[in-house]
Amino acid sequence: MRSAGIIDLGSNTARLVVMVYQPGYRYQRLDELREVVRLPEGMGGSGILRAAPFERGLQALRTFRSYCDANAIDDVRATATSAVRQASNGAAFVAAARERAGVVLEVLSGEEEARYGALAVANSLAVDDAVVFDLGGGSMQLSSLAGRRFAGGGAVPLGAVRMTEAFLEGDPPKPKALKALRRHVREVLAPRVAELPRGIPVVGMGGSLRNLANVVQSRSGYRPELLHGYRLERRALERLSDELAVMPVAARRDVKGLNRDRADIIVAGSVVIVEALAALDADEVIISGQGLREGLFYPYLFPEGDHLAPDLRAFSILNLMREYYDNPAHNDHVRLLALELFDQLAPLHGLGPDARELLGAAALIHDIGMAVDYYAHHKHGMYLVMGRALPGFSHREQVLIGLLVRYHRRGAPADLGFGGALEAGDMERLTTLAGLLRLAEYLERSKAQRVRGLRCHLGDGVVQIEALSRGDAEIEVREAGLRSGLLAAALGITVEVVSGHLPT
Amino acid sequence: MRSAGIIDLGSNTARLVVMVYQPGYRYQRLDELREVVRLPEGMGGSGILRAAPFERGLQALRTFRSYCDANAIDDVRATATSAVRQASNGAAFVAAARERAGVVLEVLSGEEEARYGALAVANSLAVDDAVVFDLGGGSMQLSSLAGRRFAGGGAVPLGAVRMTEAFLEGDPPKPKALKALRRHVREVLAPRVAELPRGIPVVGMGGSLRNLANVVQSRSGYRPELLHGYRLERRALERLSDELAVMPVAARRDVKGLNRDRADIIVAGSVVIVEALAALDADEVIISGQGLREGLFYPYLFPEGDHLAPDLRAFSILNLMREYYDNPAHNDHVRLLALELFDQLAPLHGLGPDARELLGAAALIHDIGMAVDYYAHHKHGMYLVMGRALPGFSHREQVLIGLLVRYHRRGAPADLGFGGALEAGDMERLTTLAGLLRLAEYLERSKAQRVRGLRCHLGDGVVQIEALSRGDAEIEVREAGLRSGLLAAALGITVEVVSGHLPT
Repeated sequence: MRSAGIIDLGSNTARLVVMVYQPGYRYQRLDELREVVRLPEGMGGSGILRAAPFERGLQALRTFRSYCDANAIDDVRATATSAVRQASNGAAFVAAARERAGVVLEVLSGEEEARYGALAVANSLAVDDAVVFDLGGGSMQLSSLAGRRFAGGGAVPLGAVRMTEAFLEGDPPKPKALKALRRHVREVLAPRVAELPRGIPVVGMGGSLRNLANVVQSRSGYRPELLHGYRLERRALERLSDELAVMPVAARRDVKGLNRDRADIIVAGSVVIVEALAALDADEVIISGQGLREGLFYPYLFPEGDHLAPDLRAFSILNLMREYYDNPAHNDHVRLLALELFDQLAPLHGLGPDARELLGAAALIHDIGMAVDYYAHHKHGMYLVMGRALPGFSHREQVLIGLLVRYHRRGAPADLGFGGALEAGDMERLTTLAGLLRLAEYLERSKAQRVRGLRCHLGDGVVQIEALSRGDAEIEVREAGLRSGLLAAALGITVEVVSGHLPT
Repeated sequence: MRSAGIIDLGSNTARLVVMVYQPGYRYQRLDELREVVRLPEGMGGSGILRAAPFERGLQALRTFRSYCDANAIDDVRATATSAVRQASNGAAFVAAARERAGVVLEVLSGEEEARYGALAVANSLAVDDAVVFDLGGGSMQLSSLAGRRFAGGGAVPLGAVRMTEAFLEGDPPKPKALKALRRHVREVLAPRVAELPRGIPVVGMGGSLRNLANVVQSRSGYRPELLHGYRLERRALERLSDELAVMPVAARRDVKGLNRDRADIIVAGSVVIVEALAALDADEVIISGQGLREGLFYPYLFPEGDHLAPDLRAFSILNLMREYYDNPAHNDHVRLLALELFDQLAPLHGLGPDARELLGAAALIHDIGMAVDYYAHHKHGMYLVMGRALPGFSHREQVLIGLLVRYHRRGAPADLGFGGALEAGDMERLTTLAGLLRLAEYLERSKAQRVRGLRCHLGDGVVQIEALSRGDAEIEVREAGLRSGLLAAALGITVEVVSGHLPT
């Protein structure tokens, strides 16, 4: 495995993200360091990075450099954005970074910054076309994605630190100041938004948005507790923004879900986001937990041409499988048998290609819980599936895959508290799919690929499943028969499993 | 990593356990296959393995062989115990296993079987001296452990299948039959128990015992839900045995926690165990989740001399660390700083060597949750610590280590439902230790070992911690200062963190 350190010197926050990866094969976020640098502090209209934030920025870079050296990170890529880009002494900062922190800093243009953000979205959310915004401390990037490709965009000087410094001095801010901020944001956004397409999903990123989404999500008791892919309603955001705007900063620090060190700039951040959604005429924003940093990483993971995962959903599932239980012979074979059952029994279950894809995905990762312990590995597996975002899948799909893993061995499917992410009819679909997966798993009981294929005979209220093998598959036939009850109940039929022999 | 397949052809159950390992370094249970073979079925007094169980046994071995071939297992070791050992046609079975299943079967003597069981206990429970019993389907092994070494023992023909066949024909069994069984067990046990030491812990293993413990544990709502190391009270076991004895087998199949395929032999099994505890004058039995299979595996893991882990508790922690987050430079350094703090602040906290060991253990594995995701890795870490038995540690210790991992970054320690495994005063101890660990973690904030040592100055109601470094450790000093609140609250003092310079 190679390692890459991505240093993102943002205007509010500096971060080092460490990824380990094998190009095109798998990756994992190993570590993250975060420092609040608040670079635009005291900049005002002067355009000069002041001494204190200048030193804070260098200190953060020194820490990250020292981490990368001590941990022998193979490649380090460091970028700076709005605050350094705009500062009249930005070049001096870049020189100081090289000389005093040993970090070679690329200063990204607004378009480059927007482009990498869009790349992160294309490699982590199941959207082909979208408007993407990234609200940082210094600027906001606004862009659009068409067919997963960057279709233009750039930076707008509406960052949360910058807007706080320019408009919201009081604590709490005066209504008049908020009004002035709102007006300013509208004026700046109007011409930029006019260039963007309408009627497609809006995806948002950045620390302020993640914090706001976190507050709304935790108050609503929503599960899964994952920000990436969460659909935040504009109305909920407006209510929260109004609530925060009248609180003094000390009270905002104690709001559950907000970072304490972001309490001072969150009001301005929330106003900018609310206005952006209004200007885009969007009722909700899909949160992207990935952003510029991940966008900068993808060229390492996918070095070819456009740095896009060729099949994002397939890659996500393989990435999980490879991390935790890389037994492709068994996993692939359970998938093959599950899909054969799905296809041959289609007249009985009537499920479509979406359900088929989820079944195939769950089959590949049904055993990942063994990384925690063999015993109860179905429970551990669900924990691992739900433990982090599954790029390319909606929360609903992720929950269904998690529950399929959970019920691949035994038990009657229940929603386990994730019902809020599901749609009407999903529990029935889940039960049928779990019944198919369970049968496939036990048809591959000895993990030796003895059952080479299946022939399903559909009769009146009864299905006979002929397990085709060249040699002995007695245990598979018996065990699959014993585990066929779930499928039988889901379809309201009788299921028989019998041996069938292939010519040797 | 090498792989070893251990085939244990027991009298009731045949199992293949697959372990992956690096000798002396780490191991993990990768997989397990289980088949009910019920070898003594119909044997009665004849001493002959009947045709049906004979074929079931061969079929299980063929399945396991086929698994090992398909999965390219490096070494396979297969053993048979009581049923084959006692059968007059045992040699024919061994020959058939070789010729018809491709499995070379070692038939263990009663003493060898007891010896491997004792080895499993010595490498998985924190007991130096113990009486160990292993109740199987054909026989029960009884032995003793002195200074972690096997100190003699062997097999007694009291297996659960054998006793069921010999005494408990009715459904439910007649009171008279139960009485006869009890008398028989007492008579057989008396001379064997007389040879064993008293007043030392009793450790039990085997599927019947695990099932019984599982029922008692799940009914009591006890957490952690781990069988290995669970202390099962004899009175609870007696009550459960009496309850099961009057139920028909069909009703026993639905008892939550019992394996359905063990419902017929569980009454005899419970009677044998209750009588054994009574004969040993023991109020409780410590459950060992490991047994013969793991005992047969340890010679692969620890090839030297006596196959004992030199320091079991240290090995368990390192094994976890190596599986999930093998960054020894950082982990070792957090441990070093945490123990320095512990030692220098001893006058303030007054904690002893047991607490010190737990702190050091938690420090080594505090980051393992990063294997699931960087975000919320403290929560994932606790999940992984509690996900399986931690050999050598009691449940109380495991919970304390898990909670230390959970609270190493933030939050005020709570017991999270594990209070039942803790002792009075543990929450205070936990808070102090979490305060120390958190400080150590942030004193190693950049994971570059910049803080080389500590000097603690104890004043009146205030502690000044001097972080000694050769270069720049500004971030460590600042962050540790910000995270010192938990320790300050635990000790009722003020904590200051300042820089101190070592000569360069």
